[in-house]
Amino acid sequence: MGWQRKDLLGLRDLTAEEISLILDTAVPMKGIIGRKIKKTPTLRGRSVVTLFYENSTRTRSSFDLAAKFLSADTVGLSASSSSVAKGESLRDTGLTLNAMGVDVVVIRHPASGAAEYLARCIPAAVINAGDGTHEHPTQALLDLFTIREKKGTLTGLKVAIVGDILHSRVARSNIWGLTKMGAEVRVSGPSTLMPPDIEQMGVKVYSELDAALEGADVVNMLRIQLERQQQGLFPSIREYSRLFGMNQRRLELTAPDALVLHPGPINRGVEISAEVAYGSRSVILDQVTNGVAVRMALLYLLTGGEVNAIAH
Amino acid sequence: MGWQRKDLLGLRDLTAEEISLILDTAVPMKGIIGRKIKKTPTLRGRSVVTLFYENSTRTRSSFDLAAKFLSADTVGLSASSSSVAKGESLRDTGLTLNAMGVDVVVIRHPASGAAEYLARCIPAAVINAGDGTHEHPTQALLDLFTIREKKGTLTGLKVAIVGDILHSRVARSNIWGLTKMGAEVRVSGPSTLMPPDIEQMGVKVYSELDAALEGADVVNMLRIQLERQQQGLFPSIREYSRLFGMNQRRLELTAPDALVLHPGPINRGVEISAEVAYGSRSVILDQVTNGVAVRMALLYLLTGGEVNAIAH
Amino acid sequence: MGWQRKDLLGLRDLTAEEISLILDTAVPMKGIIGRKIKKTPTLRGRSVVTLFYENSTRTRSSFDLAAKFLSADTVGLSASSSSVAKGESLRDTGLTLNAMGVDVVVIRHPASGAAEYLARCIPAAVINAGDGTHEHPTQALLDLFTIREKKGTLTGLKVAIVGDILHSRVARSNIWGLTKMGAEVRVSGPSTLMPPDIEQMGVKVYSELDAALEGADVVNMLRIQLERQQQGLFPSIREYSRLFGMNQRRLELTAPDALVLHPGPINRGVEISAEVAYGSRSVILDQVTNGVAVRMALLYLLTGGEVNAIAH
Repeated sequence: MGWQRKDLLGLRDLTAEEISLILDTAVPMKGIIGRKIKKTPTLRGRSVVTLFYENSTRTRSSFDLAAKFLSADTVGLSASSSSVAKGESLRDTGLTLNAMGVDVVVIRHPASGAAEYLARCIPAAVINAGDGTHEHPTQALLDLFTIREKKGTLTGLKVAIVGDILHSRVARSNIWGLTKMGAEVRVSGPSTLMPPDIEQMGVKVYSELDAALEGADVVNMLRIQLERQQQGLFPSIREYSRLFGMNQRRLELTAPDALVLHPGPINRGVEISAEVAYGSRSVILDQVTNGVAVRMALLYLLTGGEVNAIAH
Repeated sequence: MGWQRKDLLGLRDLTAEEISLILDTAVPMKGIIGRKIKKTPTLRGRSVVTLFYENSTRTRSSFDLAAKFLSADTVGLSASSSSVAKGESLRDTGLTLNAMGVDVVVIRHPASGAAEYLARCIPAAVINAGDGTHEHPTQALLDLFTIREKKGTLTGLKVAIVGDILHSRVARSNIWGLTKMGAEVRVSGPSTLMPPDIEQMGVKVYSELDAALEGADVVNMLRIQLERQQQGLFPSIREYSRLFGMNQRRLELTAPDALVLHPGPINRGVEISAEVAYGSRSVILDQVTNGVAVRMALLYLLTGGEVNAIAH
Repeated sequence: MGWQRKDLLGLRDLTAEEISLILDTAVPMKGIIGRKIKKTPTLRGRSVVTLFYENSTRTRSSFDLAAKFLSADTVGLSASSSSVAKGESLRDTGLTLNAMGVDVVVIRHPASGAAEYLARCIPAAVINAGDGTHEHPTQALLDLFTIREKKGTLTGLKVAIVGDILHSRVARSNIWGLTKMGAEVRVSGPSTLMPPDIEQMGVKVYSELDAALEGADVVNMLRIQLERQQQGLFPSIREYSRLFGMNQRRLELTAPDALVLHPGPINRGVEISAEVAYGSRSVILDQVTNGVAVRMALLYLLTGGEVNAIAH
């Protein structure tokens, strides 16, 4: 089976087969990153724009390097220095980039649904690099890749996602992806930050973190938005850390070889202790490397690359 | 005839032959943009700096992609993050870039004459990407290219330029270029935004837009600077739109196959209605594509490229 | 002898042999900059990140072009638009870049010691592009290269460094480098801006600039930080200029063929007169070109390039 979609907008719409295809394609891509000469001519003469309406270092650099390792040209546009300041609509910005010959637009936007809207406006491929509180599919795909790489499979694994589930596009994309791939997903976090209808997504809710960790094979700690918490909402940062922070004691509740993930950048001592973040169970840096591999795979598939034909 | 100039500073100084040479060179360049692999090694090992003292998405991205499609290296410098903040003179910035081995400096600057001043200071080629209210030659060249492509010629065409003529570098460059190429140029806009000596440029002034549109083959709608209008000057935005906005009714006053141009980004519903901007007569997106082609042609000619020798 | 170090953090730790190796390697690199096709495939498939926590045009562009001339991929990260705003630690930023497959991190940071700290955290090579008031080794290396190129040697030369020695990382790196290479270093500047223990670095202090210039072979004028001076400290800018500014009269106190250096951007008429800055003894633009050459040499050596094996 080949890749049939123009865009990658979220994991909700993908089949398990499509997710597997992306993950499988990322395997040889990771091989390229591991080489001294990180370069293949696969996307030579194709161009990728990163259109970011929110600040980001990791996701943007990751896409930028992924494109460059594949020999694509890249252009970076930020809201702060762009026509957006002149009030241009997202549709017009997209149509303009498309008319310039751009092949892929990677978009990050504070509004949920922005990526899908853009994708409907333009023939070029669109990759959602995070839209509001909706989805962040490439983050979830790199999480899935990391888990599958370490555990051999996703099926049947117990995965706990911990933190501000309500506002987290990372959580949402992970839940769609993990459940499709046959994992058992548990979520835990403050009740004020838990979507009321979350169980309809096929997950189990735990108000106590310790219970969620019991026998978990994977723990994915979400980044807490300090700005939100500092507005005086319950729980306070100190309270949050005590109730939902990952630490060495809690790690012992999980399965003996459980993995700890975090999308980064971490708030050390808040949602995760330094001991755990830099400990032997942490796969945080593997996630970073795998993010580049997964994004290479997506750029490749969305520009018409054929599976089993990656130029080395 | 080959290209003889070090720089492209404005259309005022160019001959009709030179303008034709640029437009002719842009034709095969557009062919490259239309291909799947948008890449030719023509400018490999040459470097282009975009030195922007004003924000821009379109022009900057367009130059950036044009350079990359030709395999040149590009570096972007913005006033906000540069030595300009440290009070460095334009001359010193230019001499520094030149000493770094840069071949072409693309400059946008709020001061009229800045590009010409820079060009006199340094041996490297300088392209004016807009200087104050003076000229924006690459915008005019892409407008000319678009008209010529659709109409077959520029000679004898009736072209109406509408809006704030006084502050518009786009209008000024278009007037120089169009009159040299034998078009009949009409201008229309609020009398407060019309330069008193404009008729000396060889154009006809129309205080009523409807009269200017009568039988026009091409209508070029300028972008209105909302910031300026919002300062309470006459006319108000609503007034402006009523008196000088392009809409379906007015389109019917023009020649049956008239083209509608706009440099973008558009203020939908102000100087142009959505119906017209996205309608069948609009060539706004063609302009965007042609902008990349024209800029490729200029980068090629200014670095010593020979006509009829473009590497494919 | 080959290059053995992972990083370039400062000149204090380097031997005279190591400094000579860098300068020797920069010679063929400068040859590449002088060519029409400024490109060699030496670092194809290697990636360089410029991680700048302070604004800069020259140093950053210089590294960017150096990397591109060697065919490396480059990514630019600024504190203003990065995860730094989210409070990420330098260590975590470094580990993340390293995990993305980056080969060299070029860092500029307001804190003295930041480059060394980063270098200890990550396996990737680190180049110090200026850390607080500590060191700016690539600036000093390009100064040394420029002097050696013009004078044939560094040994025995009388070099005067003039200005705010206390806060200058450029001064500090130059002093380490020049004394190791056998030059006689003199420093002159306001007593309030002179480190009390400066003579322990093996230099002679002159409170009067004229005395420091007497028979000097080289004069390196430091950039004065106008912001600092404008806070009302002694001396005022006018006073500074009178006491420690370089001008035509003072130039005549130096050796007949003395060179004048300045790291740029200059404050014309403050620390240096226009007459001298653009005069025949000034090598300020040579410094700029040589900066690219020296940075090419360092990128080459730090990524495992062998001496005498530069791909042309």
